Amino acid sequence: MVEWKNFDELKSVKALEEVKDEVSLKEVLAGEAGAERVKKYTVPMAEGLHYNYAAKLVDDKVMAALKQLADETQVLDKFALLYNGEVVNTGENRRVLHHLCRGQLGKDVIADGENKRDFYVEQQKRIADFANDVHAGKIVNEKGEKFTTAVQIGIGGSDLGPRALYIALENWAKHTGNLKMQAKFISNVDPDDASAVLASCDLAHTLFVLVSKSGTTLETLTNEAFVMDALKKEGLDPSKHMITCTSETSPLAKSNDFIAAFFMDDYIGGRYSSSSVVGAGILSLAFGPEVYADILEGAAEEDKLARNTDLEKNPDLLDALIGVYERNIKGYEATAVLPYSQALARFPAHLQQLDMESNGKSVNRFGQPVNYVTGPIIFGEPGTNGQHSFYQLLHQGTNIVPLQFIGFRNSQLENDVVIEDSTSQKKLNANVVAQIMAFACGKEDENPNKAFAGERPCSLIYGDQLTPGTLGALLAHFENKVMFQGFVWNINSFDQEGVQLGKKLAKKVLAHNTDSALKAYADLFEI
Amino acid sequence: MVEWKNFDELKSVKALEEVKDEVSLKEVLAGEAGAERVKKYTVPMAEGLHYNYAAKLVDDKVMAALKQLADETQVLDKFALLYNGEVVNTGENRRVLHHLCRGQLGKDVIADGENKRDFYVEQQKRIADFANDVHAGKIVNEKGEKFTTAVQIGIGGSDLGPRALYIALENWAKHTGNLKMQAKFISNVDPDDASAVLASCDLAHTLFVLVSKSGTTLETLTNEAFVMDALKKEGLDPSKHMITCTSETSPLAKSNDFIAAFFMDDYIGGRYSSSSVVGAGILSLAFGPEVYADILEGAAEEDKLARNTDLEKNPDLLDALIGVYERNIKGYEATAVLPYSQALARFPAHLQQLDMESNGKSVNRFGQPVNYVTGPIIFGEPGTNGQHSFYQLLHQGTNIVPLQFIGFRNSQLENDVVIEDSTSQKKLNANVVAQIMAFACGKEDENPNKAFAGERPCSLIYGDQLTPGTLGALLAHFENKVMFQGFVWNINSFDQEGVQLGKKLAKKVLAHNTDSALKAYADLFEI
Repeated sequence: MVEWKNFDELKSVKALEEVKDEVSLKEVLAGEAGAERVKKYTVPMAEGLHYNYAAKLVDDKVMAALKQLADETQVLDKFALLYNGEVVNTGENRRVLHHLCRGQLGKDVIADGENKRDFYVEQQKRIADFANDVHAGKIVNEKGEKFTTAVQIGIGGSDLGPRALYIALENWAKHTGNLKMQAKFISNVDPDDASAVLASCDLAHTLFVLVSKSGTTLETLTNEAFVMDALKKEGLDPSKHMITCTSETSPLAKSNDFIAAFFMDDYIGGRYSSSSVVGAGILSLAFGPEVYADILEGAAEEDKLARNTDLEKNPDLLDALIGVYERNIKGYEATAVLPYSQALARFPAHLQQLDMESNGKSVNRFGQPVNYVTGPIIFGEPGTNGQHSFYQLLHQGTNIVPLQFIGFRNSQLENDVVIEDSTSQKKLNANVVAQIMAFACGKEDENPNKAFAGERPCSLIYGDQLTPGTLGALLAHFENKVMFQGFVWNINSFDQEGVQLGKKLAKKVLAHNTDSALKAYADLFEI
Repeated sequence: MVEWKNFDELKSVKALEEVKDEVSLKEVLAGEAGAERVKKYTVPMAEGLHYNYAAKLVDDKVMAALKQLADETQVLDKFALLYNGEVVNTGENRRVLHHLCRGQLGKDVIADGENKRDFYVEQQKRIADFANDVHAGKIVNEKGEKFTTAVQIGIGGSDLGPRALYIALENWAKHTGNLKMQAKFISNVDPDDASAVLASCDLAHTLFVLVSKSGTTLETLTNEAFVMDALKKEGLDPSKHMITCTSETSPLAKSNDFIAAFFMDDYIGGRYSSSSVVGAGILSLAFGPEVYADILEGAAEEDKLARNTDLEKNPDLLDALIGVYERNIKGYEATAVLPYSQALARFPAHLQQLDMESNGKSVNRFGQPVNYVTGPIIFGEPGTNGQHSFYQLLHQGTNIVPLQFIGFRNSQLENDVVIEDSTSQKKLNANVVAQIMAFACGKEDENPNKAFAGERPCSLIYGDQLTPGTLGALLAHFENKVMFQGFVWNINSFDQEGVQLGKKLAKKVLAHNTDSALKAYADLFEI
């Protein structure tokens, strides 16, 4: 039996407190021992990626305490409950099954009268067939012409993950001949968002993918109407230009407004839904079903590693535990995600949702207030851009921000120039490693304004190239990291009650059912 | 004479400490008094914008203490020193003159043997003439054809500000017939960035704008070579396709590689350079010189307000002081910028650089370590997108993050649909005001998981529409806010020594002049 204990009741927290001033990065990274540490503190991930934690504030003693934390919180047993289909999202009385979209880690999960793995695979197969038919010109527009562009209409989890993955692979797909259709995204209820995307599309050859699990998301239904209006104005039939990805119980599922409907269920949270039809639809249309399958395979391979009891073979758990150590024991409030790959430009925005929506909680999984800090602020931009922007604060600001670097040996487009004896890709990577050492070890200087205190902890995920497989591994790594941290903090990482109040008040404002301050604010906008 | 005192030596800090638990947002925003407060706590900004601070933790007592802080730190006198041309950037022995690019607030500033206002205006005039000639087809490509696209090559301050401003006005310009040329941006040394942008351009009709003040920025020179290479491969003459914006002393200034060179000087910091030729070049090409002049006029109008001694007539100073109060007295570590306007999608990234690079410092302006916190972490995404992402943590996370909302009554494209009795724009704005009330006042609930503690402080900048003028006012507002905060913290907001160490180490890596841990890291990337 697993026990669900609050973080401040754990014995291992005391063990961690005792070793918290154990490591100086300047010391452990010095000399030949430092070089050895860089080589040794590396854990294999899926698809040839590695998680390197040489510049984290850990040593054998800290690792032992982290192991104790993992054991005491039974995180692997809790993960097993989750993938075996127990109701881990207790607040909403739901299973949590996004792993099952990409592989089966445990028992058969039977729910709603069906084997859920079969259900997910069936929906993937339906989408694969549909996408192949679109690409082959079997599913066409009113005039019998091929669709060339796919536009996702969705917000939050129905937008950020799929969009980040699309941007991550767009250039790779162009280079390798895998770009079947261009993809675009409409998310914001701001009418300028939909207007601008529609103006950039050849509507007659555009297929829309309407994504809402509940089928009731205000922004998404508004944008659906916006798009239908635009299609009609061009003399096009909206029902010949739109598919939907939704749950079988949603009002969209039974509608005749769509060419086809593909289904997820309540066991897939929005921010974890890239592995479900929410990602499968747009990404299979854009890149073809085989590429999408490769993403899932990379994710599935990473999920398997997340079961390993040996911390040095479980990069997702190790990353999670180090993150908790930094957040609760060292007291750092934020984490910056710094991919040295322009293709990952929107990956930090996806992680920002994934992490902050999952673990930005003040009550434990039983709804009781907690007395310790939970999820950190997540932000980031691609390097080297960030170096010329907010890195000043990261290097010399008054608060320490732990850093998560990501880098690849090779570019995606494999188009490069040699300037001053090195390619751009080498320059990019020289900057990753230089930054890690600068953050970790700093530099003394007689002039304090030119001195760097160092001791800023950095991890590095590195590999050969950003491909569908490595992207899937990255996606799963962070999902699993966030899940493990939620277990350690004893919170429910799978609900989001914090989004409700704003929605309710917005409805009141639109119904003019307000008074006092809310009405006064609404008056500022002449609503 | 002004005195430069550390923050922890100030008497007014004690006054602030005494009133720090004075205000409960739930109380002050309740009932009719709350509605009155919303109306009253509003300060006019330039161009019809307003800064509303009704949901900030202030009342008359706190305002009095903030006024005392402003007086004791002599921030307005320091601002006057700055705009009168004193060497305020003492570490680098430089004046700070970006305000002078958009207007003259004080005395003539004579430096380098010239009147600097005349110099900036002359350069703007040169760019205006050049852009008009490009638009009129007087400056053309080798074949005598018009340029249709402009691509900025620059990084950091030469990228984020101009890019954010371009994106902010692109749709407005399309709608109002002011889009003269499409603009694109290459920044990252990642070769996939330049490759992808170039692949999307018709090179024969593309004009490049190479931007580097020093003329030595690694990324920018590498991307210049990348672009020159691509032009040559197409049989085009790079020197007929490129202009530069740089300083007169830079190696680029004397080069024959460019159609024309436009100049800034050392008194314009990168992150403050949108008002100089760095912004003028690309934005005048994209929108025409008149639109660019309107941006500067909006900024100049806001700058004038920043001189007002009455806090209730000085939105930039008021915002700055409240920010210091939240950072140092209330202990909040971050600020989220939440524009309810898709056009401002990259404005938070610009502000992230502006704020974190300016005030992410641990030494005072005399180079002595400080014993208090300085600049916060800045992050943000447009609403309503963010509501479906990281707002969960903002509402119910364990740390309080102050929030800066921005919204407009009207959309830019003025294309909208009515769904359920309201336009998308009304829905967008209903969400802004609903969120402010939800963050400020929260909601009690028997189930703690559905309860909202509230007391999350919010400010709101609102106006009619995002136009060149209001955008200029926003730009200047935040520049001035950051400047005032730097004065209060007694730091130099105009240098960035924190970017140097990484650059040096990257050079060593590329020269293979490394050992130990740095070499071991480089080996991971096979550099």
